[in-house]
Amino acid sequence: MATSRPPPGKDWLVLGHEAIGIVEESSDPRFKPGELVMPVNRRSYEGHCLNCLVGRPDFCEAEEYVEAGMVGMDGFMVEYYYDDPKYLVKVPSEIKDIAILAQPPLSDLEKSIEEILAIQRRFIWTCDDGTYNCRRAIVFGSGATGTLFALLLKTYGFEVYIANRRDPPLEGEAKIADEAGLVYYNYTKESLDKLKKLGFDLVIDTTGASASLIRHEIEILKPNGVLGLFGFPSEGEAVIPYDVFQRFIYKANVVVGIINGQKPPHFQLALSHLAQWKSVWPGVTKRLITKVISINDEKEVIKALNAKEPGEIKVKIKWD
Amino acid sequence: MATSRPPPGKDWLVLGHEAIGIVEESSDPRFKPGELVMPVNRRSYEGHCLNCLVGRPDFCEAEEYVEAGMVGMDGFMVEYYYDDPKYLVKVPSEIKDIAILAQPPLSDLEKSIEEILAIQRRFIWTCDDGTYNCRRAIVFGSGATGTLFALLLKTYGFEVYIANRRDPPLEGEAKIADEAGLVYYNYTKESLDKLKKLGFDLVIDTTGASASLIRHEIEILKPNGVLGLFGFPSEGEAVIPYDVFQRFIYKANVVVGIINGQKPPHFQLALSHLAQWKSVWPGVTKRLITKVISINDEKEVIKALNAKEPGEIKVKIKWD
Amino acid sequence: MATSRPPPGKDWLVLGHEAIGIVEESSDPRFKPGELVMPVNRRSYEGHCLNCLVGRPDFCEAEEYVEAGMVGMDGFMVEYYYDDPKYLVKVPSEIKDIAILAQPPLSDLEKSIEEILAIQRRFIWTCDDGTYNCRRAIVFGSGATGTLFALLLKTYGFEVYIANRRDPPLEGEAKIADEAGLVYYNYTKESLDKLKKLGFDLVIDTTGASASLIRHEIEILKPNGVLGLFGFPSEGEAVIPYDVFQRFIYKANVVVGIINGQKPPHFQLALSHLAQWKSVWPGVTKRLITKVISINDEKEVIKALNAKEPGEIKVKIKWD
Amino acid sequence: MATSRPPPGKDWLVLGHEAIGIVEESSDPRFKPGELVMPVNRRSYEGHCLNCLVGRPDFCEAEEYVEAGMVGMDGFMVEYYYDDPKYLVKVPSEIKDIAILAQPPLSDLEKSIEEILAIQRRFIWTCDDGTYNCRRAIVFGSGATGTLFALLLKTYGFEVYIANRRDPPLEGEAKIADEAGLVYYNYTKESLDKLKKLGFDLVIDTTGASASLIRHEIEILKPNGVLGLFGFPSEGEAVIPYDVFQRFIYKANVVVGIINGQKPPHFQLALSHLAQWKSVWPGVTKRLITKVISINDEKEVIKALNAKEPGEIKVKIKWD
Repeated sequence: MATSRPPPGKDWLVLGHEAIGIVEESSDPRFKPGELVMPVNRRSYEGHCLNCLVGRPDFCEAEEYVEAGMVGMDGFMVEYYYDDPKYLVKVPSEIKDIAILAQPPLSDLEKSIEEILAIQRRFIWTCDDGTYNCRRAIVFGSGATGTLFALLLKTYGFEVYIANRRDPPLEGEAKIADEAGLVYYNYTKESLDKLKKLGFDLVIDTTGASASLIRHEIEILKPNGVLGLFGFPSEGEAVIPYDVFQRFIYKANVVVGIINGQKPPHFQLALSHLAQWKSVWPGVTKRLITKVISINDEKEVIKALNAKEPGEIKVKIKWD
Repeated sequence: MATSRPPPGKDWLVLGHEAIGIVEESSDPRFKPGELVMPVNRRSYEGHCLNCLVGRPDFCEAEEYVEAGMVGMDGFMVEYYYDDPKYLVKVPSEIKDIAILAQPPLSDLEKSIEEILAIQRRFIWTCDDGTYNCRRAIVFGSGATGTLFALLLKTYGFEVYIANRRDPPLEGEAKIADEAGLVYYNYTKESLDKLKKLGFDLVIDTTGASASLIRHEIEILKPNGVLGLFGFPSEGEAVIPYDVFQRFIYKANVVVGIINGQKPPHFQLALSHLAQWKSVWPGVTKRLITKVISINDEKEVIKALNAKEPGEIKVKIKWD
Repeated sequence: MATSRPPPGKDWLVLGHEAIGIVEESSDPRFKPGELVMPVNRRSYEGHCLNCLVGRPDFCEAEEYVEAGMVGMDGFMVEYYYDDPKYLVKVPSEIKDIAILAQPPLSDLEKSIEEILAIQRRFIWTCDDGTYNCRRAIVFGSGATGTLFALLLKTYGFEVYIANRRDPPLEGEAKIADEAGLVYYNYTKESLDKLKKLGFDLVIDTTGASASLIRHEIEILKPNGVLGLFGFPSEGEAVIPYDVFQRFIYKANVVVGIINGQKPPHFQLALSHLAQWKSVWPGVTKRLITKVISINDEKEVIKALNAKEPGEIKVKIKWD
Repeated sequence: MATSRPPPGKDWLVLGHEAIGIVEESSDPRFKPGELVMPVNRRSYEGHCLNCLVGRPDFCEAEEYVEAGMVGMDGFMVEYYYDDPKYLVKVPSEIKDIAILAQPPLSDLEKSIEEILAIQRRFIWTCDDGTYNCRRAIVFGSGATGTLFALLLKTYGFEVYIANRRDPPLEGEAKIADEAGLVYYNYTKESLDKLKKLGFDLVIDTTGASASLIRHEIEILKPNGVLGLFGFPSEGEAVIPYDVFQRFIYKANVVVGIINGQKPPHFQLALSHLAQWKSVWPGVTKRLITKVISINDEKEVIKALNAKEPGEIKVKIKWD
């Protein structure tokens, strides 16, 4: 929604939306020189939005904010910069190899799940053993966002399907699904019907493809189920007949837009989950950083900035 | 969704979905002969649905229930009947003249609002004085359900619009809106655009008309706003383009189906609100029972059972 | 805790902690000349306390606030004054005869119950019919605060005992208990044991007497039960042996201090409950204002300001 | 509270309250031969307690349950046994070396924190960046329970003090505090006063020592702060004067008993945190299992079953 623009009074801006840095100097005792920190990349003007005032600009109603390296604020592609400690999240050095994965989308997804679980406190959504183990979720889209969302839902205890239209799946996808115990699903017009028959308690759309899929995602919801829309559909329209709405109403279903996150609590949660995954899914964790490029390898850097490769999850640029 | 059927083993059933009765005999000390009670008309088989087990069959996932006088259970149009105290709600004799209004839809609406407020606990939705006074709601449809929903939202502190396509409004509608401080709004294609510009934090659909309206209801939501679908759309389809979904996602909006209620907590809440309205809106309260018919006036009873009159909110059948 | 002091720069202050006024002039369209309003009497400096920033100074952590007519702010005993609309609560003219009862303590009690129900969302506290009808509460102290607390808990559906040491109860107490269906209980050392055997899900202390009672109040809690302390104990000490704590821990009990309220949402809720009581408990409602004095009757005004009479609930001073 | 007793109809019982086992045969597709599982050791009869019916016997109000190897149910010190899958929690083989730590107390503590955070949803308890990083907690007692509680609170983002009366701390304690960034505090009569001046948002008692400490723990609470009692005090009494209660009430403080946990959701959360700790605090994690004994080393097994060694956190008995 927001178009790029430089900081006030300038006609250019420093790039760099995601970063990990090293503390050089600090007057705050919580941050010691040598420690790793990650800056928050979306910040609010605060003003009169109550959610912003209490540290939750992800629920900003004022629609006023800046994005590092994109909207009204310089980014982090510099050797040194100053920042307010309230926008810095500490990174345990033991997981510095994977910490960059805590950046969006993963931090956004932490917030998405937090929000979905909050919505579902409208009734009892846990199972007869108090866990989510009896709940079935499906994530549409198996790109970076879809894969991370599926891993996160598995971590919360859900039975998780991950669906796309590729057949067979990329080798990386198949290996991740296998180690993490995800069900890989190749949907086609026919197989959407199978999904409708099966029924899901939670449906997540990360495709960013045609809006027409949304009608089908609504139809595969079980009673009390939720459809979370994360990916911005980029074309098309959903044509939803009255009887689909009748069943939606009757089943107490919810559709919710869940994209905005990336605040300190979600960065911290993302770092926690990454540390956990490193122990229990060591293979998966390695596959999540699909490429490491040196900042000095100009050609590769430019290439990575310009386009996603197939199967790309996260590319790390190293400042040696 | 549920088709009428008699109780097991019978090929007929007693009518009577809503009722108020007088206790004749009781072994439960909480119910004394002479007291007024209202029976719950939808009941669950309970079984394995956790929400049913804890007294909330309005969130039943098993889809197994009976409805008095409609689905698998005799109704209350008899002189005497026996019931389990857990399905009886006490009615203060001081409000017996209006108590029948606590039946659906009002009891359903109590649950709808309870659920919407639960969903909105995902962030801070109250205003800078801790109330809902800064939040703007609109109810589409000004029939019985729409009118009661609007009154209830006003009671919770919202600024409330009530919208329909009639011009001018019926006399009763206008007087209710006036006494209760509702904004009466006659929408047309043009004026929907005005509503979109204005923006609403809460939109409620009670029309039961064409599904095509839903697309516009989505577009008038402000950031963090909720669309609650109560009325079953009876025809048509909603055609929702991708950019409408983009804004929906970006604004963290929710669409939720909110129809099932009518449980003891909601009956009790409905009786509380009616007692309150009787004090603060005496004129409105009188207008809510649009007709009283004697059970002996066979012709009028049949007429009332067959069709709704224009402006009808609740018809009371009296057993003198 | 707070000692009286005049507003900054003055060595005197206007009295008048509670009031109802009439709008004379207003630039805010929500307030029209002639309408009744009630001012909020405790206000926060806001500053850095997040709860204050979102309109909930009742949870202020900064301990910075003013109290009208008492601490750092002039009161309302004047013919005209100006106020910010955000500190004014509208009063329906239909209940102007009893509206003053919405002032503390009733508005404080609304907040107390809201907080207790919030705490008890840590598990399922509602009954198998979704209400609180199976939960047993006891209020210690049958003064103004105790009586109003008991009526409020009854309104929420609890079975309610009200306990004091007077025998027989005052005539007014007995009549209120009778009409509202409260169980009046005269406790003595012996009968505290009876209460322990019976067990209560919710215990409220409003006595403001000796702290020694608290030990017994803890012991009458059932599993998952809560003790809410509202009255400031004014003498003595509680001697609580280790085995009482063992049972407290084992039963997942809670003790919580619940005194601070009186914010717009609680004033509004108090007005709603008063309107409801006026319909369902007309006799009780009349008894809650125990005396009406004319402002011109100087002798009676001084007497009322100086000391409480036995059985006093609320005294109204009328400005004819 | 519960005294040991054999299963119905027997006069002996198999020992073994905590265990990890290997699936040999299973008809449930979620459990495959060779996988590791951990049995739940406290189980409810369910019956009429709503919390039990929905899988939360940790909030049982019926006080009917069995404890493996202790109360009415055989334990796990056998070569083979059968169990219902709903009482089995899967253990990732990657963390089998430390998985036994997910047993109580850690699983109990997961529930304790979940409950405290639920109670604190009564207001905004997160900081101006949405995390708990500005909240200060102190854990009294540095035994197994205290150490694990402190680590868990640190994981949730709190600033954490751990307090005992030993000086200097044991070597293991000091190293754990150092790696995890805990503040080690040796309290004496004087230094309790220092703690009162500092103030804490969360105080946890795990000492199981004299009840007299509780009075001081109450006094170090900041406004809105909570005291969680986990350890059963084993002697003495708390003498709490009226003015301590006045401040408690004024500050909206809470005391809560938080001991019962050990259900599947808490086992799963404990396993997640252990996996995370293994990555970020590898040294700490190793120190948490203070001894490994072979089941064939009869002398050592008997010794470990009879008494705790100083500094003991968890002893693992290996079935080679």
